[in-house]
Amino acid sequence: MRVAVVGASGYTGLELMRILLQHPHFEVVAATSEQRAGMPVGDAFPSLRGCQELVFEANDPSNLIGRIDFAFCALPHAASAPTVCALREANIPVADLSADFRLRDAAVYAEWYGDHPAPELIGTAVYGLPEFHRGDLEKAPLVAVPGCYPTSVLLPLVPFLRAGLIETEGLVVDAKSGVSGAGRSSDPKFLYAERDGNCEAYKVGYAHRHVPEMEQEASAAAGQGVKISFIPHLLPTTRGMATSVYARPRSGLSARAAREVLAEAYDGERFVRVLPEGETPSLATVRGSNFCDVAAFADERNGNLILLSTLDNLGKGASGQAVQCANLMSGFAEETGLLGAPLVL
Amino acid sequence: MRVAVVGASGYTGLELMRILLQHPHFEVVAATSEQRAGMPVGDAFPSLRGCQELVFEANDPSNLIGRIDFAFCALPHAASAPTVCALREANIPVADLSADFRLRDAAVYAEWYGDHPAPELIGTAVYGLPEFHRGDLEKAPLVAVPGCYPTSVLLPLVPFLRAGLIETEGLVVDAKSGVSGAGRSSDPKFLYAERDGNCEAYKVGYAHRHVPEMEQEASAAAGQGVKISFIPHLLPTTRGMATSVYARPRSGLSARAAREVLAEAYDGERFVRVLPEGETPSLATVRGSNFCDVAAFADERNGNLILLSTLDNLGKGASGQAVQCANLMSGFAEETGLLGAPLVL
Amino acid sequence: MRVAVVGASGYTGLELMRILLQHPHFEVVAATSEQRAGMPVGDAFPSLRGCQELVFEANDPSNLIGRIDFAFCALPHAASAPTVCALREANIPVADLSADFRLRDAAVYAEWYGDHPAPELIGTAVYGLPEFHRGDLEKAPLVAVPGCYPTSVLLPLVPFLRAGLIETEGLVVDAKSGVSGAGRSSDPKFLYAERDGNCEAYKVGYAHRHVPEMEQEASAAAGQGVKISFIPHLLPTTRGMATSVYARPRSGLSARAAREVLAEAYDGERFVRVLPEGETPSLATVRGSNFCDVAAFADERNGNLILLSTLDNLGKGASGQAVQCANLMSGFAEETGLLGAPLVL
Amino acid sequence: MRVAVVGASGYTGLELMRILLQHPHFEVVAATSEQRAGMPVGDAFPSLRGCQELVFEANDPSNLIGRIDFAFCALPHAASAPTVCALREANIPVADLSADFRLRDAAVYAEWYGDHPAPELIGTAVYGLPEFHRGDLEKAPLVAVPGCYPTSVLLPLVPFLRAGLIETEGLVVDAKSGVSGAGRSSDPKFLYAERDGNCEAYKVGYAHRHVPEMEQEASAAAGQGVKISFIPHLLPTTRGMATSVYARPRSGLSARAAREVLAEAYDGERFVRVLPEGETPSLATVRGSNFCDVAAFADERNGNLILLSTLDNLGKGASGQAVQCANLMSGFAEETGLLGAPLVL
Repeated sequence: MRVAVVGASGYTGLELMRILLQHPHFEVVAATSEQRAGMPVGDAFPSLRGCQELVFEANDPSNLIGRIDFAFCALPHAASAPTVCALREANIPVADLSADFRLRDAAVYAEWYGDHPAPELIGTAVYGLPEFHRGDLEKAPLVAVPGCYPTSVLLPLVPFLRAGLIETEGLVVDAKSGVSGAGRSSDPKFLYAERDGNCEAYKVGYAHRHVPEMEQEASAAAGQGVKISFIPHLLPTTRGMATSVYARPRSGLSARAAREVLAEAYDGERFVRVLPEGETPSLATVRGSNFCDVAAFADERNGNLILLSTLDNLGKGASGQAVQCANLMSGFAEETGLLGAPLVL
Repeated sequence: MRVAVVGASGYTGLELMRILLQHPHFEVVAATSEQRAGMPVGDAFPSLRGCQELVFEANDPSNLIGRIDFAFCALPHAASAPTVCALREANIPVADLSADFRLRDAAVYAEWYGDHPAPELIGTAVYGLPEFHRGDLEKAPLVAVPGCYPTSVLLPLVPFLRAGLIETEGLVVDAKSGVSGAGRSSDPKFLYAERDGNCEAYKVGYAHRHVPEMEQEASAAAGQGVKISFIPHLLPTTRGMATSVYARPRSGLSARAAREVLAEAYDGERFVRVLPEGETPSLATVRGSNFCDVAAFADERNGNLILLSTLDNLGKGASGQAVQCANLMSGFAEETGLLGAPLVL
Repeated sequence: MRVAVVGASGYTGLELMRILLQHPHFEVVAATSEQRAGMPVGDAFPSLRGCQELVFEANDPSNLIGRIDFAFCALPHAASAPTVCALREANIPVADLSADFRLRDAAVYAEWYGDHPAPELIGTAVYGLPEFHRGDLEKAPLVAVPGCYPTSVLLPLVPFLRAGLIETEGLVVDAKSGVSGAGRSSDPKFLYAERDGNCEAYKVGYAHRHVPEMEQEASAAAGQGVKISFIPHLLPTTRGMATSVYARPRSGLSARAAREVLAEAYDGERFVRVLPEGETPSLATVRGSNFCDVAAFADERNGNLILLSTLDNLGKGASGQAVQCANLMSGFAEETGLLGAPLVL
Repeated sequence: MRVAVVGASGYTGLELMRILLQHPHFEVVAATSEQRAGMPVGDAFPSLRGCQELVFEANDPSNLIGRIDFAFCALPHAASAPTVCALREANIPVADLSADFRLRDAAVYAEWYGDHPAPELIGTAVYGLPEFHRGDLEKAPLVAVPGCYPTSVLLPLVPFLRAGLIETEGLVVDAKSGVSGAGRSSDPKFLYAERDGNCEAYKVGYAHRHVPEMEQEASAAAGQGVKISFIPHLLPTTRGMATSVYARPRSGLSARAAREVLAEAYDGERFVRVLPEGETPSLATVRGSNFCDVAAFADERNGNLILLSTLDNLGKGASGQAVQCANLMSGFAEETGLLGAPLVL
């Protein structure tokens, strides 16, 4: 299948290019970048020299029609929707990595991002978490690839909400992300000298745009409104996300029983690894891969359930998950091209 | 005043040596190290070459008596108590950085550390958090310098417990520490290649030895038992600790009101900086200093109070705080020798 | 083909396991580790959980005979030779990553490493730099995979020595290596807290064991004795090696002409990328890959030729190169399983 | 003495603010920043909250006249000279950290930086390397604080040039710098994600603006023209510079004899530490300090002398050295306020 990576010069776009080089069925035939149009990919990104011979072209979807069978769209929110519209009008299936089609309610979107650029398409999009929406993804023409934070929260949390085992209010999520999650931002706070050895919380409580997304999916899983206090942090590393979910069980729940909930939920899943009792997930053990490692702990003495996850924010948190979705959308085995082992060192 | 640094070749010992070089009244006249006895300090630690001309001597307290007026003891727990005993018998005031005199109940100590080596001394020790125990520290012969985690938890938390504003059960602390907190451990998990860009939780829930210490002090502040679920993490950095405390207010508490609680509690304090509303503390802004930065946030929608702190685990979390205590114990101005600005870059 | 990774729990062993998971023709059927014998690989190294189901076995070559068609040996020097002997006696081809068969003169080996454990095998080993010894590797039963430093020096340097363009005395190599090059050493200088943000030269001049290896190969290429002053440095990163070779041209040599020498030497080579004029190689652009990037510069004003290279010390500097050799030894296309793009972020 | 820091919001300006807080005689009474004018220093740079109560003012030297007795100027080159002129016209002594007054030949300046903005002042400036120009600094009204690279090259090199022990052509300097040396640059190559674990050479050979500066001073020391091939590298760390100088002795020179040359040259110097034979300097041992550590090695077999140095590019490489100069200009003891021990961890 001939595919395009639209917005290929950002961090998730580059990671898509890297992953797709190892994919046996998807061939990247077009890579777009407004800033680098006309440059050979290998000149702009020397890591891809000798790997990828394409020349960047401008972000013009009309140029892609007829040349591609599938598109990955890695543009920023708001910029993405018009491109997705044009591609969908030409009947090209799209995996969109932006936030534009994740929220099902245009009013909620407007509250966090501004007016929606293409509200008519919202209803056609499937939320791209294969572990929960595999069936819908298999025939989906448009998939909204989840944000990195929501993926890291929902994978450990949803099994407990579905089973009604925890309170749906008062939930706290303390998440720690590598800086690549912010993309190639020119904000000085992302300069090496200002992030080296540094760590800090930001957008505390009910302030990060990923909160409505995670609450939407958590509420759907629980069958009732779920509220999450979300405290993201920047870590002094490039890749990786370590998330802690703090919940209150409706009745006593041991660490062992909690682990069983995860083990049953992810039995047979290829990319969610439920750790043995007592083991904690780390960033290094998922680096560069499509894995999400999850673990459950309890402080029964104090009435707290503790769920931990790690993933690579550019892998299972973005580009890896996009390819996983694309495999399902295209009828390929879900794990195709995604089985590279983590770069633990 | 002539002082000794006992156990001077570990990370907190080295930091004491560094800080004390800038102190106008304490002169280090003896530095002990079992492993490096007989070596000039500057040969063992080239950073101190040209700064400190002492030669390491063995850890024998009897050799110190008559030569010193004050001792900092930076030995590991259990190893520390016998040395402290010997020094106290000679009437030398001691600031002890180990865990040996932090817990007031020998039975609790035994549960977490093994039998106490000197239970008779426990009652004579003051818990060295100057912001809460300044009066007692002024005449104290023996001070137990708090652990880094308890300091980072208690400074933001205690004002709310004292005021009875929050529930005393269900508290969650998610803390992130630089690796120097573990000392010069030979565990392979502290090798550069295994920590670089890595982050992970460890000793989750009710498993870290600092939990009974923080519960002891928190309970004393609340006037009733306080339970804390504690989830420490290792950060890929050497210095610094970022701590989040998640609590449930007994009645509605806005971010502004919560910040006021902190502002009043720390009015006039030199080393606790209450951040302006909406600002989050970071590791870089306290690096190498004796500051602890604190901030309060609320998600009233979801019933959560969020307290954040950062400190340098070798500074206000250990050696800086030890010098602050020693200043009080010795009748010096509390901030003497501790006003160096953070090494933000 | 059934292969064993002997010494699979060190850093190069782990990297072999990671690379071989992506190889279509080599199947790892045995992984040995003295320390971890009996442990499932995924329990010992959680990054491989769900990827590799083997259980570590002890380092006993007699247990491997009959079960494998090829062996990668990633034991330390001196420990490796006896295992290699046993495997060769059973006629199993071996790619050996230790130093044991790199030096062709047992007396030189003795000077740097001690008495050679198996001098009779030295003559049967081929030096595993495919770009220079491809023909010999195609039928080789035993290959000595080069050290990381020699690979990074020889690839940019040899074309100039072969062409007689530079002086063979006075050469200087200033090399910078990530810490994983030292393996899982327990030396405190490899602790995170002591390497973080740190950089230093070590074994300066004629003191590192890789010097005789690089001089042996350089001299063979030049047809006369070549002397190299070698100054290795430790970088504050886990992976990667950046090497500068400083040479004096026998007659004027412009940057453009020097680049042409490299371009011709590596025309058609898959893993050596000669950079465009004026571009410098970086660690990130080769990270996790089997590429070596090379570039040439000149300060004609001052009579100096400057050759730069970067590679991943665990990739082209060790395990990637071992697989490249194994492909040749086994009659597979040289690049099989090695085309993953660098993890630039 | 009342001092101003002009251009106080860049990295060297911030470091000046940090150092001067510990200085007993210099009081910062004005801090200028075009971008932050009107903001309290502590709001703009939270590390200085509670340390420095000034409000940033605009970069207008006429506002400073009458309020200050001394100025540190940390503006970029070309922007600095007009400010320096205005301050000098008011007879205020200035330590200028820019490149504007380092080169004594306006034509050479023009070649590397463009037309000189104030050529008439060039002759009044003293090159601020106290170890070589102490006498001239004691009465100097205008000091050009050297660049970080030249300082790291000249301290180990000049004693050999002065003694005529080495060839003056063919010299090679391979230098490695932390990223703060580039200041708060918005170039994406200084983003955390693109520098993390990365290392690369740049401006190779005769291309970096610090080359004419180091050749000027080296030639003056040698009494004849000295040519240096300069190869700077970016290290994945914020602070610190490790420099290797490769030279050819005019006649045999052992490591021991070479070390003696350094030991004699720096006998009695407070900030240049000549390491014991065989020891190599590291970044950590000088971090945050005004020390420069130097060492000498030789590969006599191959005719090479190897000189190594480390310093903190913001300390002895910029702001620390500026304060050292200011002490001399003001009649204070040279080491005043500069004796803080390195932050080795």
